[in-house]
Amino acid sequence: MLKDFEPRETEDKEQLKAEIKQLKERLIAQPQQLRDKKLPVLVLLEGWAAAGKGSLLKELISELDPRFYNVQSMLVEPESEARYPFLYPYAAAIPENGKIMFLDSGWMEGAVTKFLRHEITKSEYRRRIRMVNEFERQLRDGGYILLKIFMHIPKEEQYKRLAALTDHRDTEWRVTDADLWQHREYNRFLEAYDEFMDRTDNAVPWHVVDGTHRKTAVRDAMRLLVTQIDEALDVGRYVGDPFEETFPLRKMPKLSEVDLSPTIADEDYKKELKRLQKRLSELHNEIYRKKIPVILCYEGWDAAGKGGNIRRVAYPLDPRGFDVQPIASPEPHELNRQYLWRFWTHLPRTGHITIFDRTWYGRVMVERLEGFCSEKDWQRAYNEINEFERQLTDWGAVVIKFWIHIDQDTQLARFTDRQNTPEKQWKITDEDWRNREKWPQYEVAVDEMLEKTSTKNAPWYIIESNDKKYARIRTLEIIVKALEKACANRFAQLAGED
Amino acid sequence: MLKDFEPRETEDKEQLKAEIKQLKERLIAQPQQLRDKKLPVLVLLEGWAAAGKGSLLKELISELDPRFYNVQSMLVEPESEARYPFLYPYAAAIPENGKIMFLDSGWMEGAVTKFLRHEITKSEYRRRIRMVNEFERQLRDGGYILLKIFMHIPKEEQYKRLAALTDHRDTEWRVTDADLWQHREYNRFLEAYDEFMDRTDNAVPWHVVDGTHRKTAVRDAMRLLVTQIDEALDVGRYVGDPFEETFPLRKMPKLSEVDLSPTIADEDYKKELKRLQKRLSELHNEIYRKKIPVILCYEGWDAAGKGGNIRRVAYPLDPRGFDVQPIASPEPHELNRQYLWRFWTHLPRTGHITIFDRTWYGRVMVERLEGFCSEKDWQRAYNEINEFERQLTDWGAVVIKFWIHIDQDTQLARFTDRQNTPEKQWKITDEDWRNREKWPQYEVAVDEMLEKTSTKNAPWYIIESNDKKYARIRTLEIIVKALEKACANRFAQLAGED
Repeated sequence: MLKDFEPRETEDKEQLKAEIKQLKERLIAQPQQLRDKKLPVLVLLEGWAAAGKGSLLKELISELDPRFYNVQSMLVEPESEARYPFLYPYAAAIPENGKIMFLDSGWMEGAVTKFLRHEITKSEYRRRIRMVNEFERQLRDGGYILLKIFMHIPKEEQYKRLAALTDHRDTEWRVTDADLWQHREYNRFLEAYDEFMDRTDNAVPWHVVDGTHRKTAVRDAMRLLVTQIDEALDVGRYVGDPFEETFPLRKMPKLSEVDLSPTIADEDYKKELKRLQKRLSELHNEIYRKKIPVILCYEGWDAAGKGGNIRRVAYPLDPRGFDVQPIASPEPHELNRQYLWRFWTHLPRTGHITIFDRTWYGRVMVERLEGFCSEKDWQRAYNEINEFERQLTDWGAVVIKFWIHIDQDTQLARFTDRQNTPEKQWKITDEDWRNREKWPQYEVAVDEMLEKTSTKNAPWYIIESNDKKYARIRTLEIIVKALEKACANRFAQLAGED
Repeated sequence: MLKDFEPRETEDKEQLKAEIKQLKERLIAQPQQLRDKKLPVLVLLEGWAAAGKGSLLKELISELDPRFYNVQSMLVEPESEARYPFLYPYAAAIPENGKIMFLDSGWMEGAVTKFLRHEITKSEYRRRIRMVNEFERQLRDGGYILLKIFMHIPKEEQYKRLAALTDHRDTEWRVTDADLWQHREYNRFLEAYDEFMDRTDNAVPWHVVDGTHRKTAVRDAMRLLVTQIDEALDVGRYVGDPFEETFPLRKMPKLSEVDLSPTIADEDYKKELKRLQKRLSELHNEIYRKKIPVILCYEGWDAAGKGGNIRRVAYPLDPRGFDVQPIASPEPHELNRQYLWRFWTHLPRTGHITIFDRTWYGRVMVERLEGFCSEKDWQRAYNEINEFERQLTDWGAVVIKFWIHIDQDTQLARFTDRQNTPEKQWKITDEDWRNREKWPQYEVAVDEMLEKTSTKNAPWYIIESNDKKYARIRTLEIIVKALEKACANRFAQLAGED
């Protein structure tokens, strides 16, 4: 992409000015239309240091009403970089429907520079390329207008610009050591950018803009933006097709095949609970020290005993090192973004545990059954979620998913008990009764979910919870075993083994 | 508070266990009542290293439904500490209505340790004590149930515990250098904690809990929490009384006295605009280098020309170094917290500029006139806002507030123009017309606001905007002058002068 790049001829100034003026006029009118059609736009600006990304941005936003756009500089803080997955800052920065987000540098910079500095291994680099492809496809399929621009300048031009900036006290801070290093290593960067763009020119194409002449660059970039928005306004929100990648899956039984009879004697329960909680408490210290992030996902029937189960798991944990995220129906600012956004932004830091009380699987259960998303949307979600979870486990996270399972009779008994016990009444709502009527439809959806998303790296466990105590011991056992394994394997993972 | 502290006698174990059990039962039932009454609870847990804050927390939350509470560790990242005002992380962490937030350490630790380490000056320390008093009063007055606990252990006990932790590989990381230093300097810390608690024992009292016997500590802390919540449930949401602190104010004219005739010739406008924008661009580099945060506030009549004014100010700025925050009506998660929360969480970092397109002054304008808050609430807000802004300028921020002013005829002309121009129609809504009918009431509110909140440190400027171009030049002049002054004064401020 860069190697065969042909620089632009110098163009007539007046002509350029007129073109830019015209483009600006179209750009002023577009945000309201984007808002009306609830279309989100994400503009990724990558490029060489001193290529003029800043002044390009300035021109792009100069006529925009501030209510419609945001700019975010993605020079990631090293702290955050080390404690969250690679895509975390970018996933957190995606715009709401009807808004334009401009990112100043992004995931290409976050992969290429790290790799050239030997801060990530070759296999991690390859993984990042895969993750970027997944991320971009998911955004596109979720209706995002994604524009990727690379601002290009030749080595000599970069030299001139960096030298000019360094000459003045109020601008010299703009030239970082990283910029100077990039300049010295220009050819290696060229090679690497080129390769990265080649490998990520898939769901969403790259556009190289010649940054040598500022006005030409502005015109070219603005034209790309205006045209792309116009096209999207014309065609309407894109909804991606379902697709099927092969993930290594664990064979799951149908819910109806699960034997719900297991119970535990009270005495054994107390003994086991104590033993497992003690062990979990020790492991919590160890995962903190080894910086392993842990994500525990709870799904299950209403009144299956999720809450009490979570409390037993949480009790031995240091409250400073874990978080329970109760997932209710999305608020407006969550509903207005890709559905995984509200989970991305609530991931644990390394060494911490997050327990999700209901999860992103709402997409293929309640959202599917209540029609809160289109059929294509939930059908696509199985693979999107598998990708998301693989990104988490590749980062080093332990991901465990529990389906807390009971039968219909048990649910009825517990509902009735709640109804008849004053201090439990708040726990039972009309919606619970309505959901109960949809048990057969839910069962179909859950079976499909378990079948399609129980990956080797992020498996599902069906927990027999007719006896809640038995269920608690089972989840604790599974968690303890998984954490022990993760602690034992940590070295291999740090060494960058696949 | 600590010096005259009498340690508790050892108590009967069975008796303690029974008491804790009883308290837990009450604690389980309270969250639903808090939710029904929309009462937020903030529990601040301060205390010595190894005093047992963690295990106390564990007990406090052990029976709580995770949907009702959160725990946040406030060991502030040095990065954030350096780039945001002192109270920022705590203000950002306040709970929503109906939720309980437990803070593990907080503003006392953030002031005392810094001071003892000579990382802040004596005068900054005194300022922090003042800010804490303001912050706590504002929360209380805003209906927050605030419980402040200090976990106390004697020096010998701390020694034993730190030594035990250090003895085991999986717990030794828990003992930080800061903990060891605190232990060596125990007596100085004792003195300092004592003084801090004395000076902040005002709107919200301190409670010292003896941490020597864990079960006793749990019982004592839990009793405080349960009792305090019960009291609040009984009495209902507290609404603080208006109060008047003397701030040094600038004398403001009434709006009706403002001469709106000034205009600027087109040629002068172009020349001045160019000159001022160039200067502002230079200053943006300088404030970035000098790490000065800048907060520009825009309020004004509908159609007064805020948007175009903001665009002219933003144009010369580097998009990576500023942010425009359009303030619309609050979303549910914003409405459910103290009204300044959504502004606290959108402050600029040092060296950055945030332009607020509408501000926290909505409290004393639209919220006052539409009855979105009680009379006491908006009457109290003048002082609360003055305090908030003083906290910002004490931090080193430049705070400038513009009232973009026009007369009623001009507004009518612009409304009519919007109505009749297809591409401007989206800008005019029925609400604008309704607001226009309330012009006289708004004028009273704005006059009162300008009179009571134009402090020397964060002044209001009434900008004559019948001629929009004149208004743009005026705001640019004011901003440029203020930034020049701030850049010149930066050294004095860094040296900790008052």
